Amino acid sequence: MLPIAIDAMGGDNAPTAIVEGARQAAAELGVPIVLVGRPDAVDAQRGDLDVIEASQVIAMDADPGSSVRTMKDSSLVRAAEAVRDGRASAMVSAGNTGATMASALLRMGRIKGVSRPAIATPIPVPGATPTVLLDAGANAECQAAWLVQFAQMGAVFARERYGVAEPRVGLLSIGEEAIKGNPLVKETHPLLADASALERSGGRFVGNVEGRDIMTDEVDVVVTDGFTGNVALKTLEGGMKTLVRSVLDALGATDVADQALQALLPLYATLDPDQTGGAMLLGVDGVCIISHGSSSATAVVNAARVAKEMVEANVVERLRAAVAPL
Amino acid sequence: MLPIAIDAMGGDNAPTAIVEGARQAAAELGVPIVLVGRPDAVDAQRGDLDVIEASQVIAMDADPGSSVRTMKDSSLVRAAEAVRDGRASAMVSAGNTGATMASALLRMGRIKGVSRPAIATPIPVPGATPTVLLDAGANAECQAAWLVQFAQMGAVFARERYGVAEPRVGLLSIGEEAIKGNPLVKETHPLLADASALERSGGRFVGNVEGRDIMTDEVDVVVTDGFTGNVALKTLEGGMKTLVRSVLDALGATDVADQALQALLPLYATLDPDQTGGAMLLGVDGVCIISHGSSSATAVVNAARVAKEMVEANVVERLRAAVAPL
Repeated sequence: MLPIAIDAMGGDNAPTAIVEGARQAAAELGVPIVLVGRPDAVDAQRGDLDVIEASQVIAMDADPGSSVRTMKDSSLVRAAEAVRDGRASAMVSAGNTGATMASALLRMGRIKGVSRPAIATPIPVPGATPTVLLDAGANAECQAAWLVQFAQMGAVFARERYGVAEPRVGLLSIGEEAIKGNPLVKETHPLLADASALERSGGRFVGNVEGRDIMTDEVDVVVTDGFTGNVALKTLEGGMKTLVRSVLDALGATDVADQALQALLPLYATLDPDQTGGAMLLGVDGVCIISHGSSSATAVVNAARVAKEMVEANVVERLRAAVAPL
Repeated sequence: MLPIAIDAMGGDNAPTAIVEGARQAAAELGVPIVLVGRPDAVDAQRGDLDVIEASQVIAMDADPGSSVRTMKDSSLVRAAEAVRDGRASAMVSAGNTGATMASALLRMGRIKGVSRPAIATPIPVPGATPTVLLDAGANAECQAAWLVQFAQMGAVFARERYGVAEPRVGLLSIGEEAIKGNPLVKETHPLLADASALERSGGRFVGNVEGRDIMTDEVDVVVTDGFTGNVALKTLEGGMKTLVRSVLDALGATDVADQALQALLPLYATLDPDQTGGAMLLGVDGVCIISHGSSSATAVVNAARVAKEMVEANVVERLRAAVAPL
């Protein structure tokens, strides 16, 4: 297997936590890893990992489009080029999400027939496989035909990543009835209800779903535009954070804190974003894993694991076969 | 004070829980209550509460528009007429939300200058006043000028209901920068940033906020279109439900279950939808409180309490003064 290119410079804890995670990934996963970034920033820590040199770093809050256009020697652009040029099998970054998308899109290009790539984010569901939410923020404004492709790609991802045999695909709306929703949902519903829409993806359309269904075992893939998807994702993240902190505060003040918190550890592990392995940008012509900005070394290992699995599953070819060109 | 009209027939637990709650409200709040519904359904239980007769019941899953047009003797339509005709000071229903809105809108009419009424839903925030989210589902498709009015009305509601002196109003988006978002957000942002927009409402625009800010003390009012707002609300409800159940399951299996669950009671009370007092339909020419479908007697008492407070605060006049006609 070609090495997985890890952007050493991206993320709140870069480069230290990223390089540490990259080394752990190489040791634990048995796959070659190559770091991308400034040698002086990683040399002291990189051990025997190879480095693809890149002199520039796109900041977490930089404008994605202009950064990628002007910073041609940035770690993100170089990582995407390594995949394009066959020097890496996949790229992983915890850096600026918009710039990661733009680098992948501009350097790898799209899978033929795909109108727009989408970010597929796994939402943890206690006791079940995660729900794949897409688009989680790549496209703030969408067309109905794009949502059909998101559904096709999401079904492939749920199958390859979580082994769901026939992923249940729902369209996010504000009521289960086909006539409910905004104009985009109303236009998309009949397209997805057409039996041929998901045929090649192996998914099954289960109709409109509501926000309350996302974090349940009622559905495997939830399709929406990138504005609504990003709002739903962040609303859920914020709510979980507030609730978990409140639970810890309340239990921490009791005599039984140790035992109670011990009992909750498996649940926290399920919800821990460092454990989910990151989101995947579906629709570009290569494997691109987006880890969250505050990624720890553990998050990097898990993101590299997903990259490895997606390369081994030949997910790009499976997406190519499942997406109906418009 | 004129009596509060409570729709005895609306809600999953109607009429029993509703009538029980209505009697408790009359006893606890010291305000007159009148039930609206079929006498034969409430007579055995109503005690000395008066009844406005209505022979029809709009089902929870009925189509709102056609039901309200054709069922002129329904409890929802009669409750709204009682407010319009000066026989009740407010209406409360746990019934079909769409039909509640339609009844209120068609019978009470809009406050002069208001383009569209919006549902303002309080989102509990542990340790702080709730965040008011609007529109939580009345208008699936919105115009920028309507969102400005939602912001004005939301600020008045946060002030009158929660005593927030200068409510911080945020525009829900997918990034804090003014240039981020969908076309509606980009068009609305500069309108809200204009100093005169919230002047008469007493609110202060704090810019774009993200989903993760809703359940925090960073903002008092979150403005969005009814599609996004409903998705955010239900995503949060579903996530909370899943997480609370998982916490209870994990703690319930331990030796310290009793003590641990006892410590969490105040948090559960904060999150319990029966305690929030329901949502308010802002922009109609009367007080209309929407309680959730599975309302218990306690939920009805709390909804009636909010109705009483909003009548006493003269909220409709305050909304009228705050909304800039388009």
